[in-house]
Amino acid sequence: MGTVPLLSDEEVSASALAVFDDIRATRGNDYINNFWRALAHDPITLRATWDRLKDVMAPGALDPLVKELLYIAVSTANGCSYCIHSHSVAAKAKGMTPEMQTELLSVIGMAMQTNGLVTGLQVEVDDVFKA
Amino acid sequence: MGTVPLLSDEEVSASALAVFDDIRATRGNDYINNFWRALAHDPITLRATWDRLKDVMAPGALDPLVKELLYIAVSTANGCSYCIHSHSVAAKAKGMTPEMQTELLSVIGMAMQTNGLVTGLQVEVDDVFKA
Amino acid sequence: MGTVPLLSDEEVSASALAVFDDIRATRGNDYINNFWRALAHDPITLRATWDRLKDVMAPGALDPLVKELLYIAVSTANGCSYCIHSHSVAAKAKGMTPEMQTELLSVIGMAMQTNGLVTGLQVEVDDVFKA
Amino acid sequence: MGTVPLLSDEEVSASALAVFDDIRATRGNDYINNFWRALAHDPITLRATWDRLKDVMAPGALDPLVKELLYIAVSTANGCSYCIHSHSVAAKAKGMTPEMQTELLSVIGMAMQTNGLVTGLQVEVDDVFKA
Amino acid sequence: MGTVPLLSDEEVSASALAVFDDIRATRGNDYINNFWRALAHDPITLRATWDRLKDVMAPGALDPLVKELLYIAVSTANGCSYCIHSHSVAAKAKGMTPEMQTELLSVIGMAMQTNGLVTGLQVEVDDVFKA
Amino acid sequence: MGTVPLLSDEEVSASALAVFDDIRATRGNDYINNFWRALAHDPITLRATWDRLKDVMAPGALDPLVKELLYIAVSTANGCSYCIHSHSVAAKAKGMTPEMQTELLSVIGMAMQTNGLVTGLQVEVDDVFKA
Repeated sequence: MGTVPLLSDEEVSASALAVFDDIRATRGNDYINNFWRALAHDPITLRATWDRLKDVMAPGALDPLVKELLYIAVSTANGCSYCIHSHSVAAKAKGMTPEMQTELLSVIGMAMQTNGLVTGLQVEVDDVFKA
Repeated sequence: MGTVPLLSDEEVSASALAVFDDIRATRGNDYINNFWRALAHDPITLRATWDRLKDVMAPGALDPLVKELLYIAVSTANGCSYCIHSHSVAAKAKGMTPEMQTELLSVIGMAMQTNGLVTGLQVEVDDVFKA
Repeated sequence: MGTVPLLSDEEVSASALAVFDDIRATRGNDYINNFWRALAHDPITLRATWDRLKDVMAPGALDPLVKELLYIAVSTANGCSYCIHSHSVAAKAKGMTPEMQTELLSVIGMAMQTNGLVTGLQVEVDDVFKA
Repeated sequence: MGTVPLLSDEEVSASALAVFDDIRATRGNDYINNFWRALAHDPITLRATWDRLKDVMAPGALDPLVKELLYIAVSTANGCSYCIHSHSVAAKAKGMTPEMQTELLSVIGMAMQTNGLVTGLQVEVDDVFKA
Repeated sequence: MGTVPLLSDEEVSASALAVFDDIRATRGNDYINNFWRALAHDPITLRATWDRLKDVMAPGALDPLVKELLYIAVSTANGCSYCIHSHSVAAKAKGMTPEMQTELLSVIGMAMQTNGLVTGLQVEVDDVFKA
Repeated sequence: MGTVPLLSDEEVSASALAVFDDIRATRGNDYINNFWRALAHDPITLRATWDRLKDVMAPGALDPLVKELLYIAVSTANGCSYCIHSHSVAAKAKGMTPEMQTELLSVIGMAMQTNGLVTGLQVEVDDVFKA
């Protein structure tokens, strides 16, 4: 139902298949989700997106679970249903408990609310917040 | 420059001043930022928003710093300049290091990018993500 | 500071000036706000936008003040600062009281919040809501 | 298909059931829609959201039907399909006629259009709109 | 499943049918897509929208295919699934190749990403960009 | 006034300076705009963003001017003021005429409008658009 067909392993180019192989090896399982199968029509964007995603979501100053929660927060504000579903699964795999999920949602709801209030009021940024 | 004037302590109602007092006591300093001074035109919404914010952002399954990062993520996706400024200051006060901030930004950028790709491709949610 | 210069009465084409004349006559005052002066680079879009706006915002099943409130609500969700300012002024001119403005804001804040909760939860539409 | 299962009356906590009871009493019918059944995983957010919603949407300076129209306007700008469906049903129950609905839509469409034009042109706010 | 029923040729008013006739004549085929059948509840908005769309999307300084690509870009950023589907079909009919579609998507993804980075960083507009 | 200070050539790391050098060489002028000076706090994201941007915006099946127009369209829908300013300048440098700019804006306005109408009506995707 998408704007391009999903590509099977047999249908993708060799360079796209190499990305699929890396996804499989990195994740330790064989499943390639629909996003990558749609993106495989463009092996260069597929490679660039996967390589950058792998780097960005790796452990660093923020741990991978926090990064997944941030991903869900952005995707929710943008209304990306696919992204919310896929990253909610990823977050659970990385340890998101039901308590964390409900707190995540309450923060998202709160932020959305005050975003609306601030914007409707057109509040100017305090001088002490600038620097 | 907002759509309502900011109210000084002298101009707000007694019920709004009681909220200001609670904000000061909770934060341990005297400064009331512009958002609350604009919202004070409506003491009921002021009270409801502050009380709920205090609960939502309190330590729980997620720590307060992570909650601030989530707030920035949502506010960025929604383009709320005031909220980004105020919660970036709050996040730094709660321990956000420069390294955390750059990682936060790279996750936001990545999420925005794949939100756009997924939406443009209209990728259907994988069955394994539903449950 | 915009992406096109604002055009004075002397700089616009005859067809754009005719729209300015209609704006002045309709509103009963001489001031032409910046939006129309920017849009005047394209007299056809200027004409189409003004004519349609005049129709849409006219009294009908909904009164003009309610239409201004709806305009502010959409503009707030979209983060259009100019639109919020200009339609807040228009709403006040049409009778928006401070009480109405605070209720408008509290509805916007509430809707933003539940939009975020519903989207984060990916709640399916109830069968009873479909029809 | 959501990110959490919907909870039946038998599955929710006592405090969540008390909110369901209040929803039923307030609305004068037995049906609890999916949003509340999803939110019931977090009884505190359920209670806070329902209590605040009830207050915000009550008759005041704006009548409840106008508030429903505003809710639809915000939800449309944010692309919240569930919210549009549920609040369109609520608006009809409160008296939204087909004529009101078509005018609501034409205002939303108009606001979206000029939001885009103003933002693309980066029009500066007129001094007369600031105050 | 929409908020209004789709209207058949037999159900629409004479003025709405005249718009359908013009759509058919302009496009050179008989099919009227769901958007117009939903909008036909409001013959005035139907007429205004179709007339303006026909003008805006006609050949000009930009060719019609580029205009379709722009339409898809805006619709993707706004998360309008229907619009992405219908304008992707229109773009293909006007000559969008698979290579163009993948480049379109990579530009959308890139723009979304830097929109997020710029907004999160709250970068001020360079003086040289103002004029 | 951003959330991080802009970095001068003297303040950035060697790896960030190498990116600045590449930006200068690619563009054939010495000016480094604020976005890159803000992003330079994170040399890895700076490098990844610049390298990918250079590839995505290069001539291909779509010409560079069309890509700039698409960038403006997405940035407008997302309300990214900085991005609209910087890419409007870039588009003019690549040949955007005033006529193209006004048509770009009218397409953006039209798309925003029908995005709102379609979403408010919750129109279902036609079967003929799925494939």
